[in-house]
Order: sequence, then C-alpha cells, then structure tokens
Amino acid sequence: MSPGEYRSDAVLLTPPPYSRGVSDLHHHDPRATVRAAGEFTVIDRATRGRAQPASVLLGPGDDAAIVRIDGGATVACLDMLVEHRHFRTDWSSGHDIGRKAIAQNAADLCAMGAVPVTFLVGLACPPDTPTSFTDALSDGLWAEAARFGAGISGGDLVQGRDITVSVTALGQMEGRDAITRSGARPGDVVALAGATGRSAAGLHLLEHGSAPASAAEEECIAVHRVPCPPYASALAAARAGASSMIDISDGLLSDLGHIARASSVTIDIDLGSWQPCSTVLAVAGAHQVDPWGWALDGGEDHAFAGTFGPRAPLPEGWSRIGTVSEGGPGVLVAGKPAAARGWTSWT
Amino acid sequence: MSPGEYRSDAVLLTPPPYSRGVSDLHHHDPRATVRAAGEFTVIDRATRGRAQPASVLLGPGDDAAIVRIDGGATVACLDMLVEHRHFRTDWSSGHDIGRKAIAQNAADLCAMGAVPVTFLVGLACPPDTPTSFTDALSDGLWAEAARFGAGISGGDLVQGRDITVSVTALGQMEGRDAITRSGARPGDVVALAGATGRSAAGLHLLEHGSAPASAAEEECIAVHRVPCPPYASALAAARAGASSMIDISDGLLSDLGHIARASSVTIDIDLGSWQPCSTVLAVAGAHQVDPWGWALDGGEDHAFAGTFGPRAPLPEGWSRIGTVSEGGPGVLVAGKPAAARGWTSWT
Repeated sequence: MSPGEYRSDAVLLTPPPYSRGVSDLHHHDPRATVRAAGEFTVIDRATRGRAQPASVLLGPGDDAAIVRIDGGATVACLDMLVEHRHFRTDWSSGHDIGRKAIAQNAADLCAMGAVPVTFLVGLACPPDTPTSFTDALSDGLWAEAARFGAGISGGDLVQGRDITVSVTALGQMEGRDAITRSGARPGDVVALAGATGRSAAGLHLLEHGSAPASAAEEECIAVHRVPCPPYASALAAARAGASSMIDISDGLLSDLGHIARASSVTIDIDLGSWQPCSTVLAVAGAHQVDPWGWALDGGEDHAFAGTFGPRAPLPEGWSRIGTVSEGGPGVLVAGKPAAARGWTSWT
Repeated sequence: MSPGEYRSDAVLLTPPPYSRGVSDLHHHDPRATVRAAGEFTVIDRATRGRAQPASVLLGPGDDAAIVRIDGGATVACLDMLVEHRHFRTDWSSGHDIGRKAIAQNAADLCAMGAVPVTFLVGLACPPDTPTSFTDALSDGLWAEAARFGAGISGGDLVQGRDITVSVTALGQMEGRDAITRSGARPGDVVALAGATGRSAAGLHLLEHGSAPASAAEEECIAVHRVPCPPYASALAAARAGASSMIDISDGLLSDLGHIARASSVTIDIDLGSWQPCSTVLAVAGAHQVDPWGWALDGGEDHAFAGTFGPRAPLPEGWSRIGTVSEGGPGVLVAGKPAAARGWTSWT
C-alpha cells in the first residue's frame, strides 16, 4: 500500500446517525435554484473545500480526474446524455446516441492526454423502450469504444421516464504527464484541432426540419448526431508537450475561458489566422446565419483547443488560432472582449 | 506498457461511416421491449460475445469489473438512482439520497473484497431544483464516501425531468484476490452479513403513510432511506478467503440465485439456522405481513451473502444461513424451490 492511501479499517469509521426525515437539511435560501445559481456554481459548492485523499492526484475542475489506484494512475471522467436535452430519438438512432455518449467521454480523457482503456455505461429508459433501440445503442457504444481497442466492462440498467445514458471512461497516461487546463503561459500559441460549429449548424438544420440540401448540410447533421473528436491529434499534442488542453464541449469561447481562468491568462483569438471551417461557412451562407456564432459559441463538436510553447512546431492536425498574454483572465476576439461582438462571454 | 494493453495509435483506427439517420438499425422485432425482455436479457445482449481487451481482468456479470490500468488493477462499478423509481423527495432528503447512492456502489466494491478509493457522480435534475437539495445531496455523498476516507473526484451536472444520480465507484483490492460470484463449491457454508427485509418493510410503512409507531418501524424507514451495508464484514470475508460473495441489492433469493448460477451449484437456505431479524419480525407482526417475504425477496438492504469453506470459522459479522450442494443451479428454501412457497424464484 502506498503512503497516503487508506486502509480498509477506514470502513470502521462510525456512520452518520440515522436520517431524521426530509426537512432537516433545507438550510439554504429556498428560492435558490440550480437554474439561478448556474451549473458551475452548483458543482463548485459540491466540491470546493472538501478534503480529497492524497490518492486523488487531480480532482474536480479539469476534463478528467486522476486517481492513484493499486499503484497506477487511473484517469476517470463521467458525462451524461439526457433525452430531449442532449438528443431526440426522432433525430438520432440508438447507434448514434451510443457513439456520442462514448465519444464525449473519450474526448475528455484524450484532452488530458490519456488513452481510454474501458467504459462503464448506465442506462435509464422507459420499460416500453424497444430492444431494437437498446441493441443499437449497445452496438454504437461498442463501435466507438472499439476505436481505442476498448469495450464496455460494466454498468447498470434501470427504469426511468426519459432515456438517460451515463458513461464513465477510465484511461491511462502511458507514461506521459497529464495536460491540464492550468498550464497556459504568456507567449504560448493557442491552437485548435478539429472544427467547431458543425454540431450547432446541424442542430439548427434539424430544428428547422428541412432535408439536407448539400453535402455540407449532411456533414453538419451527421456531426451533431455523432461528434468526430480528432482523438489522435489530442494525443499528438500530449506527446508534443502542449502546455494546456481542453475538450470543446460547451463552445470554443466558453472552453477557452476555462483555460484562461485556470491558467490566469488572457487568450486572444486572432481572426487573421483562423476562421470557421468551409462546411460551416457554406451552411451559414445558405441559411443567412452568422457562422462566427456557430464556430465560437456552438457546443458538442468535441474538437480540442490547446496551448503550445511559442517556438515548437504545432503537432499534426493543429492550427494556430491565437495567442496567450498576461493579465485577465479573459478571452478576447481580435483584441476585444467576445461579449462586445455579441458572442457569449465566458465570465 | 503491459502486454495486452493498447497503444495510442489504436485511435487511428477508421471511424464508422457517418450516420444515415434513425431508421437503419431497427432490425429487431419492433414489438420487443425492455420490459418484455427483462433487465438481465438486455444487459446480456449488450455484453455477451463482445471482444474485451486483455486489460479487462473481470468484465460484466459480477458486482464490479476489474481492469488493468497503468499497471494497477482498478475495481469499478456504476449504479444509478432515479427519482420516483428508487426514491421520492418527499420520503428522502437530499442527504439521504446522496448517502444511498454512494452506499449501493460502495457495497458493490466491498462485495468483491475491494476498498473504495474515489467516486464520480453524475446528476441530472430539473433547473428549478432547489440548491438546498443539491447541497444536501453533496453533503450526503461526501458523508458516506468519508467512511472510506474517500471523496468525489469528478462528475457531471445536466438538466433532466427527473432527478437521476449516477455514481461510479473506483477501488482497489489491496493485494487480495477478488471474490467473485462464481467460486461457491459443494460443501461450502452459505452465510449472511447484515439483515435483509428492513428496507422493504420501511418502504411498506412509507407507502401506507402511517407515522412510525415503534423503534423497529423507525429503523426500517431509516434503512429504506439510507442502507447500512456492513462494509467491514464484507472486507473481513475477503480477508478470510470467502469462496464467493454478493451485495444483496435485489433480494436474498434473487442474489443467491446469481451465485448459484455463476457457480453452477444449488444453494439451500436452512430455516433451522436462520430467520428474519427481530426488527423485521416486529414490524411484520404489527402489520400482519409475512416477514419471510420481506427477508427473502426484499431489495435494497445491501447486506452481503457469501460462501465459505466448510471447516473455517466464519469471520466476524457473518451468520450461517445454509449450505451449497451439487446440481442445479438453483436456490432452495428448506429443501424446496422458493417459488413453491410463494416467494420469487430467481429463474
């Protein structure tokens, strides 16, 4: 047993007293809700100031946690997909949903520079769910996991009103250091692997119900159904010694904001060296939509953003999109706060 | 890197082609549903015959999986709790639900003889959920995890119609061999740690809406809200070399059925050496309910059942309830199939 790990007699610690019912813990303002507080505040209140054991090498606040288990470092993350909120079964097949559930978790591990080893999957669904759907979901889970030579090693199946897929990904660093959100340094280059905005464009097309009118529209809808994280580029960045990296799940500006905040730096996106991909430009042009909104604010593409030392060449699959400077923390677009241009500010 | 583990160039494997929509995977009988097929059949179809990598030392089908990660063996399980199905917020506080979510996962690890190291928690909830609830839930999660010196190292918070808590527990064997469901041998003693039936009795009392009329009734309601798995007894069984062990989540007969089936043996519960605990007998007597139904079929107590070689003394906290014999597989109560006495048959 390693120092800092816990002996099994820890389980002899006295349990808390029996519950006295449902009313004794409502000691906060009853008008405060999750919507009013916001996702990140609720998570912060659940984790800040708690005592993590020494076995937790990296706790909440990054793309994944790193925990010393049985002498090795296990990299772990958990993401949920909920029907109506994250997918619709009339827009996505069970196979699509299974692949998406694995992909978003695998992207979180790869954003740390970790390689997925196995996945656990919890599924809640109504009892009248067709087994054709659960079979297709299983096939999709396994198909995406197979891209890493991984599989589904455990999980749970329960009844629920809405289909809910909860995936835990477990991986390993293969001897490298983890790439966190907090390593960006002034002078670093900001780079992007993969395209942003296609998933948001695909959602727009599905919401407007029109059949895809071009290959670009088909591509955006396909990416909305199943993201295509450039896993190999993320791992190439880890091997190349990226100073920070993040999976873009909420939107480019929002997720660069996480790096800026964790690293206490300002990130400036340079519009001279980057613009939305041609697919997004084509779809936006055909539908008279601002392509920059999709590319800067659109979520669920699971591209990767990272920062690299100024002198090293960028690894394969990565393109320069901006620079890191002192001050802030904040995210600028061509030198101005994103909010001033009508895009979401991460603050 | 160990033999059998996968190189990161595995991520260069070609992804499946783009999705072609939602209709191409419904290749099974559309009348087949999850209810008709049953939980275990759906899980079996999701896992049987799939190629697990060599890093998966123990895959689906036991209380937890065991996976070789970064040179160590990580023991992992995932269980979900869904509002209305597994708890009601008018019956249980957020603190209760948090403790229950951790306890049922910790019990799964301990049933393997593994000690929890950390937990990941996914929460889906409506946006108008009071933060007093999410704060209390967090406190409950941390309170139960603290019994192992563990904490919550990661997770996810998403919107959903019903409150859904998905917990993944990660643990380690501390040098011992895992205790699976498949090691029971003819001649072994069947033993129980903890009591069964209290959670079912508590649910009965809550469903009938009467205020608890005795300490026994208060205890059953409290155990329904927060199970009290005898974690230390499970780990003592692992140290004593139990031949098989299981967390009793579905009911004693049902879960002994899992051991009987995995071990290809018959388990006979001996009513001469075991009866429902005094708490269950008292509540059943006051409400004219069959105590054996609660004790044999009631779920969610998270007691432990195990089998032990015939000559060794039982470890602390364990009591003999029956014997293992050849044949079957099956579960008998005093020599007769359980179904013949009106209790659930596991088959």
